[in-house]
Amino acid sequence: MADLRTLAAELPADAVVTDPDIVASYRQDWARDPDAGTPLAVVRATSTADVQATLRWASRERVPVVPRGAGSSLSGGSTGIEGGVTLSTERMRDIAVDPVTRVAVVQPGALNAAVKAAAAEQGFWYPPDPSSFEICSIGGNAATNAGGLCCVKYGVTTDYVLGMEVVLADGTAVRLGGPRLKDVAGLSLTKLFVGSEGTLGVITELTLRLLPAPPAAATLVAGFPTVELAADAVVAITAGTRPAMLELMDNGSINAVEDVVKMGLDRDAGALLLARSDAPGTAAAVEIEAIRAACEKHGAQEVFTTDDPDEGEAFTVARRAAFPAMERFGTLLLEDVGVPVPELPTLVRGIGEIAAAHDTRIVVVAHAGDGNTHPIIAYDPNDVASTERARLAFGEVMDLALSLGGTITGEHGVGRLKAPWLADQLGDDVMALTRRIKDALDPEGILNPGVVLA
Amino acid sequence: MADLRTLAAELPADAVVTDPDIVASYRQDWARDPDAGTPLAVVRATSTADVQATLRWASRERVPVVPRGAGSSLSGGSTGIEGGVTLSTERMRDIAVDPVTRVAVVQPGALNAAVKAAAAEQGFWYPPDPSSFEICSIGGNAATNAGGLCCVKYGVTTDYVLGMEVVLADGTAVRLGGPRLKDVAGLSLTKLFVGSEGTLGVITELTLRLLPAPPAAATLVAGFPTVELAADAVVAITAGTRPAMLELMDNGSINAVEDVVKMGLDRDAGALLLARSDAPGTAAAVEIEAIRAACEKHGAQEVFTTDDPDEGEAFTVARRAAFPAMERFGTLLLEDVGVPVPELPTLVRGIGEIAAAHDTRIVVVAHAGDGNTHPIIAYDPNDVASTERARLAFGEVMDLALSLGGTITGEHGVGRLKAPWLADQLGDDVMALTRRIKDALDPEGILNPGVVLA
Repeated sequence: MADLRTLAAELPADAVVTDPDIVASYRQDWARDPDAGTPLAVVRATSTADVQATLRWASRERVPVVPRGAGSSLSGGSTGIEGGVTLSTERMRDIAVDPVTRVAVVQPGALNAAVKAAAAEQGFWYPPDPSSFEICSIGGNAATNAGGLCCVKYGVTTDYVLGMEVVLADGTAVRLGGPRLKDVAGLSLTKLFVGSEGTLGVITELTLRLLPAPPAAATLVAGFPTVELAADAVVAITAGTRPAMLELMDNGSINAVEDVVKMGLDRDAGALLLARSDAPGTAAAVEIEAIRAACEKHGAQEVFTTDDPDEGEAFTVARRAAFPAMERFGTLLLEDVGVPVPELPTLVRGIGEIAAAHDTRIVVVAHAGDGNTHPIIAYDPNDVASTERARLAFGEVMDLALSLGGTITGEHGVGRLKAPWLADQLGDDVMALTRRIKDALDPEGILNPGVVLA
Repeated sequence: MADLRTLAAELPADAVVTDPDIVASYRQDWARDPDAGTPLAVVRATSTADVQATLRWASRERVPVVPRGAGSSLSGGSTGIEGGVTLSTERMRDIAVDPVTRVAVVQPGALNAAVKAAAAEQGFWYPPDPSSFEICSIGGNAATNAGGLCCVKYGVTTDYVLGMEVVLADGTAVRLGGPRLKDVAGLSLTKLFVGSEGTLGVITELTLRLLPAPPAAATLVAGFPTVELAADAVVAITAGTRPAMLELMDNGSINAVEDVVKMGLDRDAGALLLARSDAPGTAAAVEIEAIRAACEKHGAQEVFTTDDPDEGEAFTVARRAAFPAMERFGTLLLEDVGVPVPELPTLVRGIGEIAAAHDTRIVVVAHAGDGNTHPIIAYDPNDVASTERARLAFGEVMDLALSLGGTITGEHGVGRLKAPWLADQLGDDVMALTRRIKDALDPEGILNPGVVLA
């Protein structure tokens, strides 16, 4: 067994936690993996030096290290490993905004919402907005290349990461990129570490690009008789305009949400589209009218628009409520499959068939403009058969997405939960290529083993 | 000596070119490296299979391979290697636009302008716009992560590459990514190959994201007494608005261009800013007025605006003319250094001092909104002293950029010309990390040796 005392000797007094109750609370992340292991210890790093000391020790002792931000992974990216160490960045939360260079330099444990707030205080905007932005860490966002609702116009996390400090498996800290808006000196290493899910290194600092504060947005909500028609409208909308949000809810998610929020959503609609325009000035109204025309041309039955930001935000909150609203139907498995936009209806229809075949409740919300869907599967964890049906459905949804030229994960990451499906998507040659890079950077295999590469 | 006959036997009849005159024309790219080698042969691939056959053969025979698109590299990224093979993609020019999925699938030899035109034909837009867009290949754009004038709002090439087919050193062809707007399944390999300058693989196909056609742009031209004031205006402009272009010309480049285009540019101005707004509808006028206010607040002496697209384009053409306009002063070395935007004035002032110290003409144009500058150095290649002074200045400009927290290359790539400076920017640890990835993917070192890693 690894000698934790030699590790503790290199770290601040309370950094190494072995209290069984506290350690147990780090076993799982939001994926609630029942097979999660119990780490030997949790290290709550306070600095880059702490992370370096932990990785040097772990390399020497060959102890697996699970990097963890806020533990909000939905794919088991920070699931505990039996005998490993969970390395938490929750105490590393500094945020410094430089309004002249227009960047934020942040530590990985800072929450996404805190980064947004610090930027906003100086009149700037950090766009990436996972639905979990109030509880997820910016380090986890970078590790998974997180997305969100605004991606359809503003891109994903990687588009905002200008540089980072990252600690490699052997404890070496390197600086990649920096506060330069264009920089092609050397390989795109910053981009390689973004989305690497803690398997290549531990991010200890990020330099993020900020945008000017966006103008107020106008909002449109449109009900469609079928998902097919809504998807046709999505294609038509994105061919001509750049909405700042373009979300879809299927009938099941509309009803699950309406049960809770009681906003008067059309319970009979086959699908609902929720779109935003943040074009400046009067252009927002013009853009919203173009979106309305595309919706009506493709069979929208009811279209509501508002330029009141609070009213618009209420619909976004309703859309974000799909996940908690489904929780009263059981424990949830949150899918994250994506397809080329034209395949959305086939995907959603197929998911309905999978749900029926397995007698399992699945509703779908989607970042429709990106083709990225979140089928939400509810099951009873105390019922072995229900759990098994949910797990089968979970796998079949990924198989379906792959058969449509899609991806098993659009923004949550592969983690542990989806690692068994990765080869089906990438193929053996790309898996081998991935393995070559992993081996080159983490020859002992101590960094988040079992994540991405099963 | 490597056996070209076994290679020729695997390729179309005229694919392997050994005619000395033709081969000689592939020795240099636009960097005109006097130390360029003469390749054994040029392979003009017609397909992925041709590229695979060439790399299999080269791996077996340990022959260096220099991938080449249109040969417009300004940093020697496709400079010939003595005894190597130059692998040209110029015959691979297919372009297929899918208007429903909103992507273009293109072969690497297609010119950037041809991709733009094919997209425009279907009402779409491929944004990245290197000044050389009419003569540079899309494969070269991906290999260097090329930028351009619109990057300040619309990002660089990597932001538009959704997927690729790439042939690895051993001849294996792999597909990375695809027509999915969000996809985080596995490591960000697509992003790693973008910007790798042919050192990790040869790109044989790209799947590119398209945007809706942009609205017509309004243009502003402002003259400032000093570069300092213009840079202050750049910071103020980008704090509040997102111009679609924000270029700077220093006094030397204004005069060099005005000599040729005779547009009435203010020859006495210390700097000129050229900005564009493509905000939709009346928002463009609002944005241009905000830019004007920022310019006037920071000492602009003369501000001209137009919403006539042709008139606006004439100024952009003038800005692009800086490079040819300087050619009458000698052979050119085109720099590409970047700094954080607030350091622009110090950089430009320092470049003036370097020019004076070496009695060498250097003018500066810049993608000012990104802090990416192109100092253009003119020298007489027939005058040994002039050539030596230019080379010294070239290096000192990079040293200066690095001392200001900048980069030796913002968008052209490291190539051969800048490889000796890369370690000064990245440091030994990042160089070692780079080397580990290079060795993992190209163990024989056949792919563009001497580029990026000297």
